[in-house]
Formats: sequence, structure tokens, C-alpha cells
Amino acid sequence: MSTPIGLSLPIAQSRTAILTCMDDRIDPMSLLRLNPGEAHVIRNAGGRATEDAIRSLVVSTTVLDKVEILVIHHTGCLMGWITNDQLRELARRRSDIDVSSVDFLAFTDLNGSVREDVSKIANSPLIDKDIVVTGFVYDLSTGQLQEICSV
Amino acid sequence: MSTPIGLSLPIAQSRTAILTCMDDRIDPMSLLRLNPGEAHVIRNAGGRATEDAIRSLVVSTTVLDKVEILVIHHTGCLMGWITNDQLRELARRRSDIDVSSVDFLAFTDLNGSVREDVSKIANSPLIDKDIVVTGFVYDLSTGQLQEICSV
Repeated sequence: MSTPIGLSLPIAQSRTAILTCMDDRIDPMSLLRLNPGEAHVIRNAGGRATEDAIRSLVVSTTVLDKVEILVIHHTGCLMGWITNDQLRELARRRSDIDVSSVDFLAFTDLNGSVREDVSKIANSPLIDKDIVVTGFVYDLSTGQLQEICSV
Repeated sequence: MSTPIGLSLPIAQSRTAILTCMDDRIDPMSLLRLNPGEAHVIRNAGGRATEDAIRSLVVSTTVLDKVEILVIHHTGCLMGWITNDQLRELARRRSDIDVSSVDFLAFTDLNGSVREDVSKIANSPLIDKDIVVTGFVYDLSTGQLQEICSV
């Protein structure tokens, strides 16, 4: 692969970047029936479109030429049924650590969290408007992916 | 699993949280010979210990009781041989997007980047001091993991 500034990149020519949750129970590559080399995988608590996730997506889309972004949240996600205040209380009780400065990006509406993150990426001035961003909910109990929105 | 505030969490009792790169060529679970359910996996460009990665690690360690954190960077990482300025120039040429506001967290010293990120996590006031943080370099050409440091 040769880039516009003549760098030779020893990177597979995959077209997909996936943003999903760090959860133990999710294997995004097998979920999407992709093989190694076929997708960048960005993961954090909740699969949220944070500033750091967008930093990674900028690398994927502007340098490594990924042309589609998939956002996958899931049923049973901790971030979907615990609040910031509960997370802070757990940290204080377990380790006496003050994490009151942290917004854990917990959410109450699973489909809404997907829509919010798809919109945040698609509307980011850092992401090429030609990139298609599609959001899904993965149902852990059935193994099904449900498309929520595409921009 | 019952937490200190009495929440019942339907989450596997794995002990490991992994922070690694989003690169297409890395499958962290097979690399560590782990099965689904045995680790949280946090990934971004470079496997860097960003504020968002630490948000996820706080969830792993204070709520979901992970007791070890593995940081894995790798040979051939784009973030290790391209500069912020080159990334910005690529984005401008490819899509006419101004990403000058983004620090891509590129690095020049691979082992040093591992040490830096292990130190950042281990010294974070948000992370329990009892958590062991170990850093590795994964050599893509040999498939070997080399331990760099442990705190």
C-alpha cells in the first residue's frame, strides 16, 4: 500500500473498523465472521464513541483507508444498567479510590446509545463524510446482531 | 457475582484486562491463549493508556474485579513509525480534513512506549495499587511476546 505522502504501509487492506465494548463475552471478529487482517478493532467500556475512539477511527479512515465503521453495543452491558454514581460508590467501597472525576459514559437506553455514538462519529469534523457508519445491538442471549441505524 | 453494593452482575469471573492496539493483525485472545470470557479487551490506535483506556480499566478493576492488566504493543505498529505531522498531512491530502487538533500518540521508542503506558496506569490515582500491570511487545514476525516491565 502506498499512501499519498509515499509511505509504504505493511498493513492489510481491510475495509472495516469496528467500535465495540471490552466485555469478556464479545468476540467481534467471530461475531462478524471476519478473519484476522479484515478489521481494525477498537474497544472500550460500552463501545462508546469517545474522543480516543475517534482518534483511532481517524487513523483507520484517513491513513489506513477503512471505508466503513461498525458500532456494536450489546444486551447485558454493564454500562447500560449501572449509573455513574453506582460505579463511583463501588470504587470507593472496593479500593477507597475517588473516581468522582470520571464520567463512565453509562447509559439507560441501549438503542439510543448506539444512535448517539453513530451520530457522534458520522458528524465528527474529523471523520470523512464518505465513510458509512452503521450501528448494531448484539443480543448476547440469541447471538443475533440487530441493525439500529446507518448514516 | 455480588458486588459491595449488592448488584448482581452477570459477568464472567475472569481476572485479566488487556490493553492493546486496534491493528488488523492482532488477535489478543489467541495470542494469550485465552478463551471467550477470560479477559476484558480494550483496544485503540497503539494500545495507548489514554484517559478513555483508564476509564475502561477502572470499570474492569474496581467493579468487575480484574486483578491484572496486560499492556501489549507490537512491532510494525503504525503509531511507532509515523509522526503526528505525517498523520495530519495524510488526512489533509486524503480528505481535506483538518486533524491538527488531534494528538495521535505516535511514538518513536517501542519498548519505551510500553514502559510509559504501564507506568501511567500503575501510577494513576484511579487504579488500585494492588493491581499488577505488565507490559509486553508482541513481535508480529515471530509471534513471540516479550515482557518489557511489570509494576
